[in-house]
Amino acid sequence: MANLEHLYPAGKAGFKDSEVTKFHECIKEWNGEAARGYGILGAPLSKPSISHSGAAQAPAAIRQAFTSYTTYAIESGLDLKDIAIHDFGDVAMHVTDLALSHDRIEETFYEVYKRNPDMLPIILGGDHSISCPSIKAFAKAKGSVGVIQFDAHHDLRNLEDGGPSNGTPFRGLLESGAIKGEHLVQIGIRSFSNSDEYRQYGKEKGVTIYTMKDVRERKITDILQESIAALKDKVDCLYISVDMDVMDQAFAPGCPAIGPGGMDSATLLEGIRYLGAQPIVKGMDIVEIDPTIDFRNMTSRVAAHVVMNYIAGKEE
Amino acid sequence: MANLEHLYPAGKAGFKDSEVTKFHECIKEWNGEAARGYGILGAPLSKPSISHSGAAQAPAAIRQAFTSYTTYAIESGLDLKDIAIHDFGDVAMHVTDLALSHDRIEETFYEVYKRNPDMLPIILGGDHSISCPSIKAFAKAKGSVGVIQFDAHHDLRNLEDGGPSNGTPFRGLLESGAIKGEHLVQIGIRSFSNSDEYRQYGKEKGVTIYTMKDVRERKITDILQESIAALKDKVDCLYISVDMDVMDQAFAPGCPAIGPGGMDSATLLEGIRYLGAQPIVKGMDIVEIDPTIDFRNMTSRVAAHVVMNYIAGKEE
Amino acid sequence: MANLEHLYPAGKAGFKDSEVTKFHECIKEWNGEAARGYGILGAPLSKPSISHSGAAQAPAAIRQAFTSYTTYAIESGLDLKDIAIHDFGDVAMHVTDLALSHDRIEETFYEVYKRNPDMLPIILGGDHSISCPSIKAFAKAKGSVGVIQFDAHHDLRNLEDGGPSNGTPFRGLLESGAIKGEHLVQIGIRSFSNSDEYRQYGKEKGVTIYTMKDVRERKITDILQESIAALKDKVDCLYISVDMDVMDQAFAPGCPAIGPGGMDSATLLEGIRYLGAQPIVKGMDIVEIDPTIDFRNMTSRVAAHVVMNYIAGKEE
Amino acid sequence: MANLEHLYPAGKAGFKDSEVTKFHECIKEWNGEAARGYGILGAPLSKPSISHSGAAQAPAAIRQAFTSYTTYAIESGLDLKDIAIHDFGDVAMHVTDLALSHDRIEETFYEVYKRNPDMLPIILGGDHSISCPSIKAFAKAKGSVGVIQFDAHHDLRNLEDGGPSNGTPFRGLLESGAIKGEHLVQIGIRSFSNSDEYRQYGKEKGVTIYTMKDVRERKITDILQESIAALKDKVDCLYISVDMDVMDQAFAPGCPAIGPGGMDSATLLEGIRYLGAQPIVKGMDIVEIDPTIDFRNMTSRVAAHVVMNYIAGKEE
Amino acid sequence: MANLEHLYPAGKAGFKDSEVTKFHECIKEWNGEAARGYGILGAPLSKPSISHSGAAQAPAAIRQAFTSYTTYAIESGLDLKDIAIHDFGDVAMHVTDLALSHDRIEETFYEVYKRNPDMLPIILGGDHSISCPSIKAFAKAKGSVGVIQFDAHHDLRNLEDGGPSNGTPFRGLLESGAIKGEHLVQIGIRSFSNSDEYRQYGKEKGVTIYTMKDVRERKITDILQESIAALKDKVDCLYISVDMDVMDQAFAPGCPAIGPGGMDSATLLEGIRYLGAQPIVKGMDIVEIDPTIDFRNMTSRVAAHVVMNYIAGKEE
Amino acid sequence: MANLEHLYPAGKAGFKDSEVTKFHECIKEWNGEAARGYGILGAPLSKPSISHSGAAQAPAAIRQAFTSYTTYAIESGLDLKDIAIHDFGDVAMHVTDLALSHDRIEETFYEVYKRNPDMLPIILGGDHSISCPSIKAFAKAKGSVGVIQFDAHHDLRNLEDGGPSNGTPFRGLLESGAIKGEHLVQIGIRSFSNSDEYRQYGKEKGVTIYTMKDVRERKITDILQESIAALKDKVDCLYISVDMDVMDQAFAPGCPAIGPGGMDSATLLEGIRYLGAQPIVKGMDIVEIDPTIDFRNMTSRVAAHVVMNYIAGKEE
Ligand SMILES: [Ca+2]
Ligand SMILES: [Ca+2]
Ligand SMILES: [Ca+2]
Ligand SMILES: [Ca+2]
Ligand SMILES: [Ca+2]
Ligand SMILES: [Ca+2]
Ligand SMILES: [Ca+2]
Ligand SMILES: [Ca+2]
Ligand SMILES: [Ca+2]
Ligand SMILES: [Ca+2]
Ligand SMILES: [Ca+2]
Ligand SMILES: [Ca+2]
Repeated sequence: MANLEHLYPAGKAGFKDSEVTKFHECIKEWNGEAARGYGILGAPLSKPSISHSGAAQAPAAIRQAFTSYTTYAIESGLDLKDIAIHDFGDVAMHVTDLALSHDRIEETFYEVYKRNPDMLPIILGGDHSISCPSIKAFAKAKGSVGVIQFDAHHDLRNLEDGGPSNGTPFRGLLESGAIKGEHLVQIGIRSFSNSDEYRQYGKEKGVTIYTMKDVRERKITDILQESIAALKDKVDCLYISVDMDVMDQAFAPGCPAIGPGGMDSATLLEGIRYLGAQPIVKGMDIVEIDPTIDFRNMTSRVAAHVVMNYIAGKEE
Repeated sequence: MANLEHLYPAGKAGFKDSEVTKFHECIKEWNGEAARGYGILGAPLSKPSISHSGAAQAPAAIRQAFTSYTTYAIESGLDLKDIAIHDFGDVAMHVTDLALSHDRIEETFYEVYKRNPDMLPIILGGDHSISCPSIKAFAKAKGSVGVIQFDAHHDLRNLEDGGPSNGTPFRGLLESGAIKGEHLVQIGIRSFSNSDEYRQYGKEKGVTIYTMKDVRERKITDILQESIAALKDKVDCLYISVDMDVMDQAFAPGCPAIGPGGMDSATLLEGIRYLGAQPIVKGMDIVEIDPTIDFRNMTSRVAAHVVMNYIAGKEE
Repeated sequence: MANLEHLYPAGKAGFKDSEVTKFHECIKEWNGEAARGYGILGAPLSKPSISHSGAAQAPAAIRQAFTSYTTYAIESGLDLKDIAIHDFGDVAMHVTDLALSHDRIEETFYEVYKRNPDMLPIILGGDHSISCPSIKAFAKAKGSVGVIQFDAHHDLRNLEDGGPSNGTPFRGLLESGAIKGEHLVQIGIRSFSNSDEYRQYGKEKGVTIYTMKDVRERKITDILQESIAALKDKVDCLYISVDMDVMDQAFAPGCPAIGPGGMDSATLLEGIRYLGAQPIVKGMDIVEIDPTIDFRNMTSRVAAHVVMNYIAGKEE
Repeated sequence: MANLEHLYPAGKAGFKDSEVTKFHECIKEWNGEAARGYGILGAPLSKPSISHSGAAQAPAAIRQAFTSYTTYAIESGLDLKDIAIHDFGDVAMHVTDLALSHDRIEETFYEVYKRNPDMLPIILGGDHSISCPSIKAFAKAKGSVGVIQFDAHHDLRNLEDGGPSNGTPFRGLLESGAIKGEHLVQIGIRSFSNSDEYRQYGKEKGVTIYTMKDVRERKITDILQESIAALKDKVDCLYISVDMDVMDQAFAPGCPAIGPGGMDSATLLEGIRYLGAQPIVKGMDIVEIDPTIDFRNMTSRVAAHVVMNYIAGKEE
Repeated sequence: MANLEHLYPAGKAGFKDSEVTKFHECIKEWNGEAARGYGILGAPLSKPSISHSGAAQAPAAIRQAFTSYTTYAIESGLDLKDIAIHDFGDVAMHVTDLALSHDRIEETFYEVYKRNPDMLPIILGGDHSISCPSIKAFAKAKGSVGVIQFDAHHDLRNLEDGGPSNGTPFRGLLESGAIKGEHLVQIGIRSFSNSDEYRQYGKEKGVTIYTMKDVRERKITDILQESIAALKDKVDCLYISVDMDVMDQAFAPGCPAIGPGGMDSATLLEGIRYLGAQPIVKGMDIVEIDPTIDFRNMTSRVAAHVVMNYIAGKEE
Repeated sequence: MANLEHLYPAGKAGFKDSEVTKFHECIKEWNGEAARGYGILGAPLSKPSISHSGAAQAPAAIRQAFTSYTTYAIESGLDLKDIAIHDFGDVAMHVTDLALSHDRIEETFYEVYKRNPDMLPIILGGDHSISCPSIKAFAKAKGSVGVIQFDAHHDLRNLEDGGPSNGTPFRGLLESGAIKGEHLVQIGIRSFSNSDEYRQYGKEKGVTIYTMKDVRERKITDILQESIAALKDKVDCLYISVDMDVMDQAFAPGCPAIGPGGMDSATLLEGIRYLGAQPIVKGMDIVEIDPTIDFRNMTSRVAAHVVMNYIAGKEE
């Protein structure tokens, strides 16, 4: 852009406060060299969803939400403005071949991890189906993986009735052997949102389940401490999978499967910050935000705070 | 329908997971024989509302919400899939004669109760005006009735200023002698939403009143235990009337009379589950949801959870 | 349902004027026997769309729109209330395998046509990708087919870049040999909505193209008369494919690809009525309505009028 | 209000251009003395509607729309700023007794006409049910009345099925003898929006019917000239009843019964201006706008232009 | 208005319950004489906002919200119906000269305070920029002022980058010497919403800062008691400035700068009631509500409750 | 960006058809060297608007709309894909000093014109106030200027009542002597949207006025031919100022001042194409689109077509 004083490029902000760093200013497009620090990876795929979903638009919506916030975590006494965050962009999805799209996620993420072994990936879905290829790639690159899943649902549906959908990511992971049942912890599972058959399937596989009743009656950090303690000697690293519908519909109005009786955002953010602070936690995804049905991008705003609190935890 | 494999009737779901039972699958159209178990009865009437209301559309919206949830109450360790729920349909309202519509509710419900003495009715309003004929029919069929009303408002307005409206159901019940003041408990009454005149009227009649201040300072189950203890030897059965505006506007955005400072949904659902578990509780209505102004059918979704938690309480 | 006077089944209308027949009352669920008259077939598929589309919800939205209109075509002096319209339901789509979904459309429609040779099919999409399997099935059952396509776009994109999508149905038909280029007429093609490459491809294949400029400068019935004259001796029957985005965005606000400079609804309906009156026209589809982004179901309301005017033309 | 320079009353505009007169500035609250010129009368009633309607809010929405426009009709070379328009306010409706509300309209309007014999009433509905008592009052005060009704619908439904509703105003007028069939002209009647039974009923009563086909094929002023010629020797005065759903849904998106194939706003406004210029035309109502489902108050804005063009016609 | 029984002025409510006083009925237009009690003053200005804001429409939206509530504070056992509240109207803003608009606020408020020394002002913004001239006027009329600011943000931005905006009111007050840093308490400051630079600036000036972490871990009344104790001997009076974005986006969806992790409405209202009860608190403003992006006027409804709870506190 | 096959930069489209050029692909960021061809310049300013306006967001919305269309103008037989269009970005506005913002527009545009004498500017507002500094800069750089203004309003308000606002641009130009009255042509002026005082002011200054009645009764190209003929010997060049509210609200729902009775989009686009083809026309602005109140960006989509048809006219 030429140097006329008051001309700025289209799509950029015309006003800039010289003493404020916006969070998105920490995020740089990946330059192709081995990156250290954090990496943003988008998986804009929602056609595998059982119900109509626009979650493919969430990576853009969450990136947009970063522009509304700053780098300074006053509640932690910490400024993140010198943190290196690399934006690797989004995986290109095939228009009609969904299995191929899942393959592209797995192959692309694996390749990224191989070239950037010191980078901590933060994956922006997409619907929850993306966690299956995402965690496969993670396991292939990083060794044995434990997973802490925030979700109202087990996501252990059978693969026969509808193929690999947003209801099956953890079934797919268990059946393929990519992770073991005893390495999976599910937090926030809710009444009237699951079937006993799938709970039993989970139990038989050794999955640990904390319901919303547990979350209401115990502190979230106690549950997480217990989970980490159980997993840390069994796996090489941990991956957090945050299905935003773990939250109550009042706090996450833009998820496809909304309902009452879920977590509030303060509890989720406290849990994420706690997990970020654990060195064994090395990857995270955020899924199931459909910006086309949200109110004022609220749910993507919470997602941005999930990312920022995760990093604040790591940097504390 | 003919037997082509992939053809399914219009309006039905094309995808079905064989290991999941959706809640609406428990609900069968009433076959005309004496029913046992639970009965859904719609009262799609909102023309008596003082302000413009589309609550007549709530029975359809709540039935729609059931299709989003399953039968399995993991937090209670209970699957409701073998429960018998009969859908008796909706009372046909006259287009222009509102008194006749109220009469039809009373007569139709009474007739249903007489033919189905072992059925526990769950009534979907409609505005709160429907509770007056509904409770009259209930009392006529079941004996003396105590009422536990969740509401931000007393609903004890005089009948002169606007006839039997959504502001008068409990006035109508008290004045007609259908219930006694000492058999009425109001929970969640809120500041700046009522008049002292009507509070005094209630007090004179012997009505018990718990304000939102009480709800914030005590456990909801303590308040309900106290209420049940006071009522159980005086009446033959209890009827719960749930005006959804007892909730804070953040949790029930689709009620006509929204405001801050109300209950959250977790508290309401816990209370309902507790009441369901009391054998003396034999009827319930849910009113004051206007789906035309709601966001993503949220308020009807909470209503579906009220129904499901009530049944979960009963089946525990 | 039992015989209580004012009880009506959930989901039905409580008010009925005995001297008015609503259009949906002409439509009966297919009983499995060989049907005569008209048949409604739903193809609720929009996952093949290049951009995010909820067109899978259009069959339900259009059926809903029928309930708002009556059978009496006063402008034609014709009452359609004794017309037989059979609703064959919707083809069940696979959750994740889109090619299989297209196969199911083709196979199911073909089977329906074979069993019901005297039935005139009216197909409700879905995105425009459904026209490829739909017309293949039609050609297999009915002989050589000419197609009159109302559309702002050629829909002749190459099949390599994204597979069989809503941009490729006519490319797919031409390349598979299901129809010939000289048997395809495109009406309403618009500036800034296509590429010269695809226009040339069409021209080379012998496709006839009328732009919006032609539509503005000539009467729509003249264009159609000319088209019918050119096709009627070359094919056994004609199929109309109505992409609703042929209309200006002011008249069809719920199409995914909206823009100014299109047809108004009166012109489209006049054209459809004219085509309905031609005996050689034996099939029609209506596609590219996304009810999730429409305003008050307006675009599906126009679609209902397309169906009703088509039948009025046939019955004149 | 006290005299602080920059303080202005709540609810008023803070900016005023001294050389512009806004249309609402012509409208003064009626002072109780016999008024000359024009009178605005509100009939905020929509509970008699067959389908859910918020048309009771239209008088307020139309008054609000006046504040967006000025008094200067440049296309007629006419400034209306010195015209006397009296706002008589709205009739108070009973909350639950709809027949009583209709009675109040009739009695109140009659009383207003008696006290203000030289005032030309402009009535803002409400749903179309208000035209029945409104025209009865008009006939009682002014002598025999001819009616020119702009509507997509006959509004001649039987009174048995649902009482006096928004589908019955002209049936009610004919059956009560308040007007004769040969004194009623209906313009804009649309296909698929009526039944043959009611057309026949109208024809038997001598009603003149112009369909939308007539409107598309002839000039609106020709149709109106023909209508006036037929009526002017038979009645004492004419009353125009403008059901806004006579317009296409693209131009009047806020009517309850929207659909394609209707009038555009330029045609309607030209017709109204023509009618205003006829001295025999002495009253008008505007009905069936539901502001709760409109987009940006568009339909009420057209209504404001109907009023302004009517007056411009009278003042030409 | 003339005396026809069922005619009422346009814009007024047609239904009135004789035993209920709506809150807005306590509010009378100021008659120009020295007022006692409470005064409402509107500052409808939002053009100084950094991002696009419609907060200029909030005074009207909050006044509208008062019409939804009553005078009876059942939770405090207190009826406010005899309280005198004077509506002084809104300051007229210049269309294009923003500095002049700020001057008008300061001058007009000062003049109002001088003429009404015993009136407690309640100021309805507007964006937060109005607090700078508002507090200057307050200090000039009332003596030295301490400020308790509820806000997610410091609002201490430099004045060079964009002039006096909604990011600078407290910077403007400190730099002009209108208030001292040690007389300013900020409550609810949130992570990722500020910069360390401005926190340091505040600290250097002696500002007291409570973050949302403090609010989550302590009772709001403890924090306020501590704040009052620190200020009460240093200043003549206290002014509360309530930026509604101190609340979580679930409770205040209509603020321009929304995000998760904020206060709930019950906490804010309890704090306000506590502050109202302190005699040293003599003024309050409520800012940063943009009704054009709110859902069902929810945020203005909370603002109405802030006003009502403040008065309830004062009258206890 | 690194070279992984399926990875694409955030914010870009993942699907690309190799045979289609999207219109925005013609637009390149200005490289600082003297540009030939067309230039896009944004003036994102709407704080000077009399009513609340978000028109500052229109440059971004129009640029976004370009991504929905292609370069091929089939109706003109013309592909624009090799046209050079330079995006100069947007002028940075001051947050609070509106006069300074106007100055920056004038200075920046003048500087751009001086450095790029062979570039044809296309200016994206902003409210109409930006046309005053924009045309001043144009005149200073290009010589004497004639202006063809499409608008429902004169925009000749006095400058005393509210300073230089969106109601005053042409008053400001006439009073400053930047243009002469006889060099200004206004097209589309509408009834009830102006005052006689300002029409008279215009007439006295020699302004030519065509009302909507003229547009309805004559062909738009006749009016424009007449206008060009009158201007072409008196000025060095022509500038078109397109206030989108010249269109009917059905076609331009996102303008602040909407109403019925305006132009349809086909007429406007035909006029623009005609003007583009005149060599004396050398500049254009498009103003008064508020994307925050639009439906599906419809009004910005028409604006994109205004730009594309203008260029198609020039290239014919
Ligand atoms: Ca989930
Ligand atoms: Ca999940
Ligand atoms: Ca209530
Ligand atoms: Ca109630
Ligand atoms: Ca197409
Ligand atoms: Ca198309
Ligand atoms: Ca009618
Ligand atoms: Ca009608
Ligand atoms: Ca602030
Ligand atoms: Ca703030
Ligand atoms: Ca203008
Ligand atoms: Ca204008």
